[in-house]
Amino acid sequence: MTVPTKMQAIEIARPGGPEVLTPTERDVPVPGAGEVLIRVAWAGVNRPDALQRAGAYDPPPGASDLPGLECSGEVVAVGEGAARQVGEQVCALLPGGGYAEYVVTPAAHCLPIPRGLSLQQAAALPETVFTVWSNVFQRGGLEAGETFLIHGGSSGIGTTAIQLARAFGARVIATAGSPEKCRACEELGAERAINYREEDFAAVLKEFGGADVILDMVGGDYIPRNVKALKLDGRLVMIAFLGGPKAELNFTQVMVKRLTLTGSTLRPQSDAAKAAIAEAVAKHVWPLVEAGKLRPVMDESFALQDAAKAHARMEASEHIGKITLEVAGG
Amino acid sequence: MTVPTKMQAIEIARPGGPEVLTPTERDVPVPGAGEVLIRVAWAGVNRPDALQRAGAYDPPPGASDLPGLECSGEVVAVGEGAARQVGEQVCALLPGGGYAEYVVTPAAHCLPIPRGLSLQQAAALPETVFTVWSNVFQRGGLEAGETFLIHGGSSGIGTTAIQLARAFGARVIATAGSPEKCRACEELGAERAINYREEDFAAVLKEFGGADVILDMVGGDYIPRNVKALKLDGRLVMIAFLGGPKAELNFTQVMVKRLTLTGSTLRPQSDAAKAAIAEAVAKHVWPLVEAGKLRPVMDESFALQDAAKAHARMEASEHIGKITLEVAGG
Repeated sequence: MTVPTKMQAIEIARPGGPEVLTPTERDVPVPGAGEVLIRVAWAGVNRPDALQRAGAYDPPPGASDLPGLECSGEVVAVGEGAARQVGEQVCALLPGGGYAEYVVTPAAHCLPIPRGLSLQQAAALPETVFTVWSNVFQRGGLEAGETFLIHGGSSGIGTTAIQLARAFGARVIATAGSPEKCRACEELGAERAINYREEDFAAVLKEFGGADVILDMVGGDYIPRNVKALKLDGRLVMIAFLGGPKAELNFTQVMVKRLTLTGSTLRPQSDAAKAAIAEAVAKHVWPLVEAGKLRPVMDESFALQDAAKAHARMEASEHIGKITLEVAGG
Repeated sequence: MTVPTKMQAIEIARPGGPEVLTPTERDVPVPGAGEVLIRVAWAGVNRPDALQRAGAYDPPPGASDLPGLECSGEVVAVGEGAARQVGEQVCALLPGGGYAEYVVTPAAHCLPIPRGLSLQQAAALPETVFTVWSNVFQRGGLEAGETFLIHGGSSGIGTTAIQLARAFGARVIATAGSPEKCRACEELGAERAINYREEDFAAVLKEFGGADVILDMVGGDYIPRNVKALKLDGRLVMIAFLGGPKAELNFTQVMVKRLTLTGSTLRPQSDAAKAAIAEAVAKHVWPLVEAGKLRPVMDESFALQDAAKAHARMEASEHIGKITLEVAGG
């Protein structure tokens, strides 16, 4: 297969709402040392894409200005020393640029398509699995038998976190915003789903003796309530602030309960750090995917040129699981 | 030597200022299984003693109501299965009760008197060394080559932390409240002492590229400034809140810099947890003490019956290093 020099892509015309996502033509990128060029089959849609679109989250230095942090597809060219072969099917974490027919990424950020998964399903894995693994298990240190609270349990991150925490033997409690979403969380393995519009999660957690680990993407007034919901030696890991990043907190609880408040973002981390996560994911998570213990929960898919519609759906928070873009498909 | 049935001690007559510390007569306690009875030579004076005296820090269940968290002295009786011998000289972490002629504590919380140290010096070690080791090295994970910021550098905790961090190869920066205290910090090995009345520590830390680990006992508006002063992957460990426990914080920095905010208090931890710290201290810290790399900085000493004067001095914050009470002396 010949690689063309031009490709279709979606660019951010200016900071703004979903409508600023605009079809465009771009040069096909060239893989540098250690990188691969992937012909994109499917691209995953994630919250940071919408933040970038709104002008609130610039790409890291050197990354494509096009949105898109994960994809599946076929390796069609390799840079010097890249440990992947032309013709391999992979899914990959991307520094950006996934909303396009072709994208480059370090070979070490690619993983094989898990046996039994379609290319579409595989495209929905990297961003959420890397995020959940590095934050819940590496940073948060969740262990078998511990109690895990996940906010936004029906989101892409949430549906992944519920299944993964269960697969590793944790008790899982999830929050979500509707009876339907709560049901989805429980079907995925949450022992209890809390409709946050009707119940105070900190009060419910008390019945469970508190949480050992909380994964939060809400922030704001959830932060003091998370602190209240944690038990002795509990860990709060913050990965986004959909409700705002500021909170007044009484740190006595942090000291007396010996809590750990921490967090991270994936994209600005070094290539080496991401490669290390990829290695751990391949070792610890891929076997669970192939054993059917972790399945990406798929929401709607859209054609690449309809990326704006995909963002509108995500920002309406009506989705359950992952939204994908069909590029070459397959 | 016969152990009497009655002893002199200092009790907290009611919650209040230093003047509520009152000489009294009490029964000599009896060591239970795994415990030893120590004839106290010297007792160390610590901030939590003053909090307890003020009614802000109740003793944990089962502990003596008398103040005093550390001492040195001679083992004069042992409970069933206690791994210490009558006649041994030890220094020890106490659950309370150190302001007395006799005190009981788990044998596993006793350490030998380091070679070259007096009984008075040894009495000044346990509370601060256990606190610094467990918070700076275990909880904060300070490593050689990292930058360590210690607030209250001239306090008992501070003078211990400066020396210990230096001995383990960290760069040390300390804050203190007077030129004299700053000088003391630098003489102990701080590369830079910051007079917090004259300089903004967060600004100074910027010149050093930020701190990897901060040990804080101030809290209040220090908390957001600590967060500002931390570099990528930095850790803030909070062990007291002399400036109050509340702060408004923008947690974006916690997420983006992948910080860890944590803390602990020593006294309520389980006997097993304290025994584990004692074991680590014996292994990692005692050799440094015996090599002269860590010396307790001794402030004034007072007779046991003058405990009120000792507290008044500590609360005036005029001291440098540790204040001790002479009980049997030696």
